[in-house]
Amino acid sequence: MHYLGIDVGGTSIKAGLVDETGQILESRRALTIADNLNGFVSKLADLIRSFQTTASIAAIGIGIPGLHSSKTNITETSPNIPCLKKVNLGEILADQVHIRTVTENDANAAAYAEFACGAGVGLQHMAHITLGTGVGSGFIFNGSLFTGASGYGGEFGHTIMSAGPSWQKTGRVCACGNLGCVEMFASATGIVITAEEMMRDAPESRLHHEPPPLTSETIHAVALAGDATAINVFKETGHYLGIACANLINLLNLETIVIGGGVAAAGNLLMNATLESAQSHAFPSSYADCQIVQSKLWPDGGIIGAAMLARDR
Amino acid sequence: MHYLGIDVGGTSIKAGLVDETGQILESRRALTIADNLNGFVSKLADLIRSFQTTASIAAIGIGIPGLHSSKTNITETSPNIPCLKKVNLGEILADQVHIRTVTENDANAAAYAEFACGAGVGLQHMAHITLGTGVGSGFIFNGSLFTGASGYGGEFGHTIMSAGPSWQKTGRVCACGNLGCVEMFASATGIVITAEEMMRDAPESRLHHEPPPLTSETIHAVALAGDATAINVFKETGHYLGIACANLINLLNLETIVIGGGVAAAGNLLMNATLESAQSHAFPSSYADCQIVQSKLWPDGGIIGAAMLARDR
Repeated sequence: MHYLGIDVGGTSIKAGLVDETGQILESRRALTIADNLNGFVSKLADLIRSFQTTASIAAIGIGIPGLHSSKTNITETSPNIPCLKKVNLGEILADQVHIRTVTENDANAAAYAEFACGAGVGLQHMAHITLGTGVGSGFIFNGSLFTGASGYGGEFGHTIMSAGPSWQKTGRVCACGNLGCVEMFASATGIVITAEEMMRDAPESRLHHEPPPLTSETIHAVALAGDATAINVFKETGHYLGIACANLINLLNLETIVIGGGVAAAGNLLMNATLESAQSHAFPSSYADCQIVQSKLWPDGGIIGAAMLARDR
Repeated sequence: MHYLGIDVGGTSIKAGLVDETGQILESRRALTIADNLNGFVSKLADLIRSFQTTASIAAIGIGIPGLHSSKTNITETSPNIPCLKKVNLGEILADQVHIRTVTENDANAAAYAEFACGAGVGLQHMAHITLGTGVGSGFIFNGSLFTGASGYGGEFGHTIMSAGPSWQKTGRVCACGNLGCVEMFASATGIVITAEEMMRDAPESRLHHEPPPLTSETIHAVALAGDATAINVFKETGHYLGIACANLINLLNLETIVIGGGVAAAGNLLMNATLESAQSHAFPSSYADCQIVQSKLWPDGGIIGAAMLARDR
């Protein structure tokens, strides 16, 4: 049996033909049409049909960024794809291509991929965190994808880890409007903010010579070249990411936290500081239960997870 | 059928005979012997036997403060009851009184009480937060008590909500050693710290005339008498508690957060500010799914929950 996994992003749609074990056999990509639902759907239907010419598809899974209801299967809003507003994309597509189609939030689908065939196989309690421009996350509790009352859960990136008093109006302002979200410290965006703060006290840093705008990739390259300030930016990011992981560990007594995404590519530069901080902030017994590991499936987790949800639902 | 629910505390042990519906029929109390296991156990056995003289007990449930393993049923440590170190209290007691005995962390037992017969009946996804000297909590996910890999989960009071940079060593230092735990803002301890901070800028406050040590009860009384600073202490506590609730709402898409404990007795003074802050910090769709309500069972939730766990396990 083959399943089609589709990972809808703000700029492109990635699709893959996936076998029963989670292996991608064939993949394709199309540009996202963000502002026109008919255009968006026909692009997606064309993409599906292009796979159907050579393969038989048992079911389709689609990971969609934004607020997706598990009660109604309706995507309420998708900030970067405005045409997906109060849309039952699974139903619309199934009508067009006549294949059973399941839908899920994209971060939840990526978490399910690691659980089904990645770094979390066989686990009961797991978190998956994707560190990119933002911070995405999904949770497995008791061996099942956990998304809460309506499927909106798992927004770890938008939990506040650096709250100040009510009269304090300055700080790291998140796109969601809040001050001090995890996303403002542990994402590529957060890394740039941390670097800008640290550069003020480090006029000697080579980061000052980089052409603007500063990016987390640039900071990573400068760190690898030995710049102390750039190295400290990743250590400081690990300090915050470790506290965020310790919060999950104390709250949920997890077996594993899987970390993926472009930022995780910083490797030991980030992970060593993250592990050290998580260990020093979590209860020893709970920390001892939990491994913090890198993703096995990134950047394909979205495709694979969507396909595995199509297999299992 | 009648069950015996026992709520072990650092200074006293409360026990109640509970019917199948969670009603307490009869209750007794004994002082905790904290430093001698034989003494502790024989006090507990005597308490149980005192109920047996007039009632038939189908099973016993015990809520124990501290680290309690769901894998081994062993209490690893209990900070305020040092004799409970690597002890299988259920097994020891069952041997003495010949009644099936189940054990659980006390905060988890209190959460289970609200789920079984309090403010959370019929729910799938619920948090229970007890605001006392510290902050206790327990969680229901998918209609079951959730305690994680080893039963250590649910330590919401020891998640960090006010993290600073790694070089910052000042702030609200929690008993657990971390800076900025939820417990340091939302508990009676946190209320006193907030008051002490606010009093520095409010020489006119009546709080300055209260005999030391300042307590949350005193601050509450002064607030009820109309002192603006004392009122603002509860508003500021609600600001933080609301952020902490919003974090749970965004992360877990809960149906209900039940708040109990002595601090919750501050009523609207605290709850109005908490609701306002939670609403302004949580995603609207997730907030709309979640009610924040006061406990129905406090201060008896520990007894009732332990009895209901004895009924249901």
